[in-house]
Amino acid sequence: MNRDIYQEPLVSRYTSLEMQELFSERFKFTTWRRCWIALAEAQHELGLTMVTQEMIDELKAHADDIDFDVAAAKEKEIRHDVMAHVYAYGLQCPKAEAIIHLGATSQFVVCNTDLIIQKKALQLIKKTLINTIDNLSSFCREYKGMATLGFTHYQPAQPTTVGKRNTLYIQDLLMDLEYIEALEQQVKARGAKGTVGTQATFLELFQGDHAKVRELDRLVSEKLGFSTVFAVTGQTYPRKLDMKTAETLAGIGTSAHKFAVDVRLLSNLKVQEEPFAKKQVGSSAMAYKRNPMRSERMTGLARKLMGLPANFAATAANQWFERTLDDSAIRRMDMAQAFLLTDAILKLYVNITSDMVVYPKQVERYLRAELPFMSTEKILMACVEQGKSRQDMHEVIREHSVAAGLAVKEQGLENDLLIRLANDERVPFALNELEEMIGNYQEFTGRAAEQTDEFLDEVVGPVLEKYQDQIGGIDSSLKV
Amino acid sequence: MNRDIYQEPLVSRYTSLEMQELFSERFKFTTWRRCWIALAEAQHELGLTMVTQEMIDELKAHADDIDFDVAAAKEKEIRHDVMAHVYAYGLQCPKAEAIIHLGATSQFVVCNTDLIIQKKALQLIKKTLINTIDNLSSFCREYKGMATLGFTHYQPAQPTTVGKRNTLYIQDLLMDLEYIEALEQQVKARGAKGTVGTQATFLELFQGDHAKVRELDRLVSEKLGFSTVFAVTGQTYPRKLDMKTAETLAGIGTSAHKFAVDVRLLSNLKVQEEPFAKKQVGSSAMAYKRNPMRSERMTGLARKLMGLPANFAATAANQWFERTLDDSAIRRMDMAQAFLLTDAILKLYVNITSDMVVYPKQVERYLRAELPFMSTEKILMACVEQGKSRQDMHEVIREHSVAAGLAVKEQGLENDLLIRLANDERVPFALNELEEMIGNYQEFTGRAAEQTDEFLDEVVGPVLEKYQDQIGGIDSSLKV
Amino acid sequence: MNRDIYQEPLVSRYTSLEMQELFSERFKFTTWRRCWIALAEAQHELGLTMVTQEMIDELKAHADDIDFDVAAAKEKEIRHDVMAHVYAYGLQCPKAEAIIHLGATSQFVVCNTDLIIQKKALQLIKKTLINTIDNLSSFCREYKGMATLGFTHYQPAQPTTVGKRNTLYIQDLLMDLEYIEALEQQVKARGAKGTVGTQATFLELFQGDHAKVRELDRLVSEKLGFSTVFAVTGQTYPRKLDMKTAETLAGIGTSAHKFAVDVRLLSNLKVQEEPFAKKQVGSSAMAYKRNPMRSERMTGLARKLMGLPANFAATAANQWFERTLDDSAIRRMDMAQAFLLTDAILKLYVNITSDMVVYPKQVERYLRAELPFMSTEKILMACVEQGKSRQDMHEVIREHSVAAGLAVKEQGLENDLLIRLANDERVPFALNELEEMIGNYQEFTGRAAEQTDEFLDEVVGPVLEKYQDQIGGIDSSLKV
Amino acid sequence: MNRDIYQEPLVSRYTSLEMQELFSERFKFTTWRRCWIALAEAQHELGLTMVTQEMIDELKAHADDIDFDVAAAKEKEIRHDVMAHVYAYGLQCPKAEAIIHLGATSQFVVCNTDLIIQKKALQLIKKTLINTIDNLSSFCREYKGMATLGFTHYQPAQPTTVGKRNTLYIQDLLMDLEYIEALEQQVKARGAKGTVGTQATFLELFQGDHAKVRELDRLVSEKLGFSTVFAVTGQTYPRKLDMKTAETLAGIGTSAHKFAVDVRLLSNLKVQEEPFAKKQVGSSAMAYKRNPMRSERMTGLARKLMGLPANFAATAANQWFERTLDDSAIRRMDMAQAFLLTDAILKLYVNITSDMVVYPKQVERYLRAELPFMSTEKILMACVEQGKSRQDMHEVIREHSVAAGLAVKEQGLENDLLIRLANDERVPFALNELEEMIGNYQEFTGRAAEQTDEFLDEVVGPVLEKYQDQIGGIDSSLKV
Repeated sequence: MNRDIYQEPLVSRYTSLEMQELFSERFKFTTWRRCWIALAEAQHELGLTMVTQEMIDELKAHADDIDFDVAAAKEKEIRHDVMAHVYAYGLQCPKAEAIIHLGATSQFVVCNTDLIIQKKALQLIKKTLINTIDNLSSFCREYKGMATLGFTHYQPAQPTTVGKRNTLYIQDLLMDLEYIEALEQQVKARGAKGTVGTQATFLELFQGDHAKVRELDRLVSEKLGFSTVFAVTGQTYPRKLDMKTAETLAGIGTSAHKFAVDVRLLSNLKVQEEPFAKKQVGSSAMAYKRNPMRSERMTGLARKLMGLPANFAATAANQWFERTLDDSAIRRMDMAQAFLLTDAILKLYVNITSDMVVYPKQVERYLRAELPFMSTEKILMACVEQGKSRQDMHEVIREHSVAAGLAVKEQGLENDLLIRLANDERVPFALNELEEMIGNYQEFTGRAAEQTDEFLDEVVGPVLEKYQDQIGGIDSSLKV
Repeated sequence: MNRDIYQEPLVSRYTSLEMQELFSERFKFTTWRRCWIALAEAQHELGLTMVTQEMIDELKAHADDIDFDVAAAKEKEIRHDVMAHVYAYGLQCPKAEAIIHLGATSQFVVCNTDLIIQKKALQLIKKTLINTIDNLSSFCREYKGMATLGFTHYQPAQPTTVGKRNTLYIQDLLMDLEYIEALEQQVKARGAKGTVGTQATFLELFQGDHAKVRELDRLVSEKLGFSTVFAVTGQTYPRKLDMKTAETLAGIGTSAHKFAVDVRLLSNLKVQEEPFAKKQVGSSAMAYKRNPMRSERMTGLARKLMGLPANFAATAANQWFERTLDDSAIRRMDMAQAFLLTDAILKLYVNITSDMVVYPKQVERYLRAELPFMSTEKILMACVEQGKSRQDMHEVIREHSVAAGLAVKEQGLENDLLIRLANDERVPFALNELEEMIGNYQEFTGRAAEQTDEFLDEVVGPVLEKYQDQIGGIDSSLKV
Repeated sequence: MNRDIYQEPLVSRYTSLEMQELFSERFKFTTWRRCWIALAEAQHELGLTMVTQEMIDELKAHADDIDFDVAAAKEKEIRHDVMAHVYAYGLQCPKAEAIIHLGATSQFVVCNTDLIIQKKALQLIKKTLINTIDNLSSFCREYKGMATLGFTHYQPAQPTTVGKRNTLYIQDLLMDLEYIEALEQQVKARGAKGTVGTQATFLELFQGDHAKVRELDRLVSEKLGFSTVFAVTGQTYPRKLDMKTAETLAGIGTSAHKFAVDVRLLSNLKVQEEPFAKKQVGSSAMAYKRNPMRSERMTGLARKLMGLPANFAATAANQWFERTLDDSAIRRMDMAQAFLLTDAILKLYVNITSDMVVYPKQVERYLRAELPFMSTEKILMACVEQGKSRQDMHEVIREHSVAAGLAVKEQGLENDLLIRLANDERVPFALNELEEMIGNYQEFTGRAAEQTDEFLDEVVGPVLEKYQDQIGGIDSSLKV
Repeated sequence: MNRDIYQEPLVSRYTSLEMQELFSERFKFTTWRRCWIALAEAQHELGLTMVTQEMIDELKAHADDIDFDVAAAKEKEIRHDVMAHVYAYGLQCPKAEAIIHLGATSQFVVCNTDLIIQKKALQLIKKTLINTIDNLSSFCREYKGMATLGFTHYQPAQPTTVGKRNTLYIQDLLMDLEYIEALEQQVKARGAKGTVGTQATFLELFQGDHAKVRELDRLVSEKLGFSTVFAVTGQTYPRKLDMKTAETLAGIGTSAHKFAVDVRLLSNLKVQEEPFAKKQVGSSAMAYKRNPMRSERMTGLARKLMGLPANFAATAANQWFERTLDDSAIRRMDMAQAFLLTDAILKLYVNITSDMVVYPKQVERYLRAELPFMSTEKILMACVEQGKSRQDMHEVIREHSVAAGLAVKEQGLENDLLIRLANDERVPFALNELEEMIGNYQEFTGRAAEQTDEFLDEVVGPVLEKYQDQIGGIDSSLKV
C-alpha cells in the first residue's frame, strides 16, 4: 500500500478480494481480449475468410499475457485506451494483427466487458445476500417466541417478539433478491452493433448479408456467456440499465441501513448487540464501551451507496443521441463504488448476523416496566366487549395513562395505571380483573411467533431451498 | 383557484384530472370507509357475533357521504385524523359506531388506502406509457428508412435512420414498463395486522383462533381488491416498497428526459420539432422563435421526478423498529408528487409524439455536409481488405480528415477529404474509386431500417398486442 | 379547500400564511406591475420622451387591480404568461399600453419578481430562525448546569449538561444565519438587461447612449429595492444563485433534523420531550403514548428539504448558453417548496423550543446507573498521575469494565466495577478512594456550564442583540 | 500501480499529486503527531509539570519517522487506529510515552487533522480556481467584440459577443470564490475539547483552573495554525461544516458543468473547441472526429461532485447527540472524493481555457443565416416608435417570421423575411429601409463589448489583483 498518496478506503479497508479483482485492470483488459477472440471466432464461423483459424489460435495463445506497459505508453501517446490495447495485442499477434477488432467500435469491447463484470459482480452480491438471509432466518427461528417491546415513534407500543421483528429485515432483503433476479433478466449483451448501433461496418464486411450480421450479434453474445442481446443500441448499451443496477444495489443498502440503525438503538437499550472482538478497544478514553461500530459503519456505507443511483439516472437522462462521453469518468468510479459498497455492507451484515447477542434479562426488564401501558388496548377491547363505546373508553384510558406516565417521568414512581383504572367507575373491571387480564405478557405478542414460523416456512424456506448451493463459504472477517 | 396563496403548479398547470382525484381527500377518506366496511364484513363472515349484518348495512349506506367539516373539527381537537374520521362515521352510523375500526390500528386504513391509490395511479401511468410507446412505434415505422446523421460526443459519427434512433426511446420505455409490471407484483395489501403487526388485538377478538385471524388478514385484503398480502409487517407496509415505486416512476422520468433533450438538440438543428400551437407566441421579443417548450418542460419535470427516490430511500432506511412517523409528512407530499410528475411528463410525451415534425431537407443537408467524413470507416475497411494494416491506415486517414476538418472550420472551404486521400500514395484507391465507394448515403445506414422493423415486430408488437385495450383515449391537451 | 383534487399539504397543513402569500399569483403578478412601473419611471427620468408622466400615473393607478380572468384567457390563447399580462394591463391602461414592457424581455419581470419574492421570503425565514435561537438560548441558560449523560455511538460516554448539549443546536443555527447573511449579499437585481443580457433594445431606445442604458439598469433595480445588480446576465439571473439559496435553506433543514432526531431519542429515554397538547391523542390504539410527533414531522420535512438543492444544482449546471427553459417548471415548484418547507420546519422548531419539557429525575437516574463507568477516564488519569503507564492502565480498566458491563446485561446485576478495580492490585487505589474519586457527579461535567455561559454571552448574545427587533411575534401554533 | 485489484480512477487518472498527497496516510499520521506535539507544548507552557521539555523534544525528534507497520499491526489487534498510533509513537519516545495524547480523546487528533487537511486542500482549489478565472478573463478581453449568435431555448435569439458570453462563466466562478472565502471563515480548529466536548479531563489535569483549560484550547489551536476555534463541540467538530465544504466544492462543479456543456454544444456547431492534442485519436473507427472529450469528462466528474453534498447533509442530520460513528467510513471516502473531483475538474478547466479555439468564419456564418430573424425586435421597436401598437406589430411580425422560418426548414430556401415584411402594408417601412435597419450586425450586440470591459475592469480586476501571487504555476497537463 502506497502511503504517500490517497488510497481508496473501499479497497484498503472494507471489501472482499473477489470484488476488488472484478474491477481491476487485469480483469477488464483480459476480458477485452475475450471479446476480440469471440468476435474473430464468430466472423470465422460465419464465413468471413479474411479471419483464419490460425489467427484465432494466435489470439487465444495470448489471451492473458497482456503487456500493460506497452499499452499504457501507447495510450499516453494517442489518448485512446482501446486502440492502445489493440496495438499491444497486435504486437503479440502479428498474424492476427490486421483483424483484431475488425469492424468493431471501441464500445464493442468496453460495453460487453462492463456487462460481463456486472453480471459476475451481481452473482457475488447475490451469494452474500442469501447468506445474510440464511443467518437471519436461524436467528428468527431461535427467538421467534421471545417477547420484546415493540416500538412505534420509538415509544413502547405493543409487544412483539425478537424473532418476528427480525423477519422484517428478511422481508426487505427478499425484495432486494427479487429485484436482483429481475435485473439479471435485463442484463443482456451489447453484442456486435458497430459505431452508432447500425452494424454498418459488419454489413459491409459481410457484403450486405443481413441474416449473417444479425447472427454475428447473437453468436458473439453467446460466446461471451449471454443468452440474450439488446435488440437495438446506440453506441453503448442503454445507460438506463446502469440506473436499474444502481437502484438494485442501493436497495440492499437501504435494507441494511434500517437494520443497522435498529441494532444501534438496541445496543443503547442493552438489549441486543453486534459481536464484539475480544481485544477490541471501545474508545481511547472509555475502555468499557461496546460501541456498535460495525452497525455504524454499515450505516455510513449504506448512506453513500444510497446516494449513487441519482448519478446514474442523471447520466442516462443526459446522454445525447447515440452516445456522449460524459458517462465515462463517472461510470468508471460509480459502478465500481456501487458494487464495492454493497460488497462491504453485506460482508458486515453477514458478520453481524453470524453472532448477534441478545440479553434476555434486559428484554424482559423493559417489557415489565411498560406492561401496564401495553395492556391498555386489551382493556379497551374488553370494555368494548362489555358494551362500552370505543371512543368513550379510549378517552378514559387515555386520561389515566397519561397521568400514570407523567408520574413515572416526573416523580420516578412506579407505574400505577391499573389502580387508577380500577378506581374509575366508568371502567367496568376491578383491579384483580385488570391484573388477571394482563397476566402473562407472552400473550400480548399475538401471532408473532406463529407469523415467524409461517414466514420462515412458506416464504423464506423456498428461497433458501432454491439457492442452497450458495449457502456457506463467505469470509466475513473484517480488516479493520 | 385561490390566487392569494400558493397553488401547487402540478395541479394548476400540468396534470390530468384523474390523477389529481386519486390523491384528493375525497378519494382517501371514502377509501378509508371501504376499509372499515371490508373489516366489518370479514369479521362478521368469520363469526364475530358483535359485528352484525345490520351494522354493516348501515356502514355501507354511509360509505360516501362524509361530513368533512365534522371530521376536520374533531381532528383539530384531538390531532388524530383516523380517530376523527371514526368519530364522524360513527355519528352517521349510531348502530355500528362501537365496531368501526374494531381491533384495528390507524395504519389499517391508512396503509391499505395508500396501496389502493398507488395501484390505481400505477394503472393510469401504465396506460399513458403504452400510448406513448404506440405513438413512437408509428413514428419509427414511418421513418425507419430515412437516413440521418448519427452522433457520438454530439459530433457526426456514422449515419443511422430517424426511425432507428427513435427505437432507442421505445426500448427505454419498455424497460420502464417491465419494471411497472414487476412493481405490480410487489404491491400487496397491508391487510389486518394490528398495531405492531402481531395481530394481537384480532387474536383477542377471535379468542385465540389463529386460523381465523390469519384468514381475516387474507379476506379483508381480498375484499379490498388485492390478491396478495404482505406476509409480515410492522405498523405499516414496508417503506422499502415506496422506494421501488419512486424508482419505477423516476425511471420513466429518466427515459423522458433523454428523449426531451434530444428533441431540444434536434430543434436547434432544425431537423425535428415538437408540435407548435397555431397562436403560440415564441417569446415576447422574438416572435419567430419555435422554442421547444414542451420538451424543455418535460426536462424540468423529469429532473424533479428523478430527485424523489432518494427521499423514499432515506425514509425507508431510517424507519426505527416497527415504525416511526418521520415518514408521514414527506410521503404525503412525495408520493403524490411522484405520480403527478409522471402523469405530467407522460401527458407531454404523448402530446409531442402524436405529431412530431421532421424536416427531410434539413436532415439531408446535414448528412451531405458530413458524408466524406462519414465514409472514412468504409474506406478504412476497404484498405484493410486490400491487405493494409488497420493501424497504419487509421493514422493516414486520421491525418487527412483532421486537416480537411480544419479547412472547413477555419477557412469555410468545402470538404476536400477524398481528394486529399486520393493524392496520398499510401491509400490504394483513386479519387473516382473513393467517390464510388461512398455512393448513395443510404447504404451507410447499415441495418438501421431492418433493425427497426425487427424491433417493432418482435419486441414492441407483442407488448402492444398484450395491452391493446389500453391504447387510445388519452387527453394529452395542455393547459398552459 | 377543494377536497376533490390533490391539495398541497405544505399549504393545507404546515406553513404560515405569510409565506403562502409570498408565493401566490397575486403577489407575483402585482410585483410584475411594480417592475413595469419602475421601468417606465426610469425610462422617463432618463429622458425617454415617449414615456410620459401621464402614462406612468395611469400604470400606477392600476398597480393592484389585476383582472386575472382576462390574463388567464389570453394566456390560454397565446401560451405566454408575460404577454398575457402585458395585454391585461394594457386594457386597463390605454394611454400607457404601447409602452408597457418597452424594450424589455419577459425575464425582466419574471427574474426581478422572483428575486424580490426570495428576498422577502428570506427575511421571514431569518426572523423565525432568530426566534428559535432565542428560545434555545433561554433553555440553555436554564439548564446549563444540569448534568446529563453524554453519548457517543449512542453509548454512555462522559457526562455533559443539558444546557451544553443544546448549545450545539444553536451553533448549527448560527452557521445557518451566517449563510443567510452571505446569501443576502448575493441576491442582486437582474435589472434591465434585455433578451440575452446585452441591453441591445435599450441601447436602441436610448440611441446608443451607453451611460444612460447602464444607469437604467441601476435605477430600475434601485426602484425595486435592490442596492446591487448583477453585473452581467444571460436572459435570466444566474441559476447558480438558486442553488445557493436552496443550500442555505437546506442547511436549516439539516440543523433542525439533527435536533429533532435527538429529541426523539430523548423522548424514548423519557428524559426530555416536546410539548404535548392537552387533548392530543397518542394513537388510536395506545392512548397513553406521548409520541414525539412534531419532531418526527420536522424530521420528515427536513428530509424533503435536504433533497432539493440537488435539483437546483442540476438546473444551473444544465442551462445552455444564455438560457433554456428547462428551469421553469422545476423552479416554479422547488423554490416555493424550499421556502415553504423551511417555514414549516422553523415553525415547528419555535413551537417545540417554546416549551420543552425536561424530567430531572429521569436525567439523574440514567446518570447514576452509568456513573461507575463514567469515572473510568478519571481513574485512568489518576493512575497515570501516580506514574502508571496510560496504555497499561487503559487495558486493566478495559477488562474490568467490560466484565462489569456484561454482568449488568447478562445477569441484571448492579454495576460492581469499582469493587473489581479495587480488588486488582495493579490499580493503586482502594475502594473508598475510588468512591471518593467519583464523588459528586456534577464534577464530571467539566467546563460544560462555563462553556454554556461563555457561548451564550460571547457568541449568541451579540447576534440576538443585533437582531433584537426581530424577536417575538411568531405564531407557532400548529394546524394539525 | 496494482493492476490486480481496483484502483481509484481519481488517483490513477485525473488528479494532481499535491491533492493526492494531502489525503494520504503519510500526511494524516504525521499531522496527528503535530497535534500531539502541540498539545504537549501547550500543556507544558501552561504549567503542567508532568509534561517536560525533554519529552517534547523527544516527540519532535520523531515527528516524521512513523513506523507504519507497527501501527498497522497494533490496529489490527485492538481495532483502534488512534490508540495504535499512540502506541507506535510511544515505542519511539519512551520518555514521553506516558504523556502522549494526555487528557485527549481520539477526535483531538482526528478532527484537528481533518480540518488542517481541508484548509490546505481548499487553498489548492482556490489557486486553480483563480487561474481559471485569469484564463477566462484573457479570453473574454480578446473576444469581447466578436458578435455571435445568442441562444435562448437553444434557439437563435439576439446576438451577443463571444467575450460577453464567457463573462457569465467567470461570474459563476466568482460566486464560488466568494463562497470559498466564506467557508474559510467557518473552518476553525476543533481544539482540545475532550470526549464529549466538556474538557472534563483537561479540567481535572489542571485541577479545576477554568482559565487555563480555556487557554489550552486556544493555544493548541494557534499552534496548529488556526486563528479561531469552535466555541463548543460534541466529540467532533460540527458535521454541518462538512456539508458547507461539500456545497462549496459542488458549486465549482456546477459552474464547470455549465461551461463544459456549452463547449460541447459549441463544438457541435464547429464554432468553438477545446484544445486537441496532436496525436490524439478521435475514435477507433472515426479518425477525423474532434470529440470534446475534456469537456465531456468535466461534465461527468462534475455530475459526481454535485452528488456528494447530499451525503454530508445526511450525515450531519443524523449525528446522534455528542457523536455517532456513522460519519466515519463515508467521510473517509467522500471528503477525499470531493476535493479530488474538484481538483480534477479545475485541472481540466485550466487546461481547456488555456488554449480555446474559436472559428470566426463559422461564428459569422451562423449569425448571417439568422440575421433577418434577429432584426425583428429592432423592427418591432422601430414600428412602435412610429406609433404602432406593440401588440399588433408583434403579431404581424410573428406571422411573417414563422412563415419565413418554415420556408427555410421545409424547402431549404433562403430567409426572405424582410421581403415579406416590406410587402405587408401594416409595416411602415420599405425593403431598403428594413435592410438598412439591420445594417451591420455588430450593432445588434448592444452593450456586450462594453459590459465585458466593465465587468473585467470593475469586478474581475480587483479579485485578480488581490490574488495576483496565486496566478501561474499550475500543471494542467493531463495523464489520459
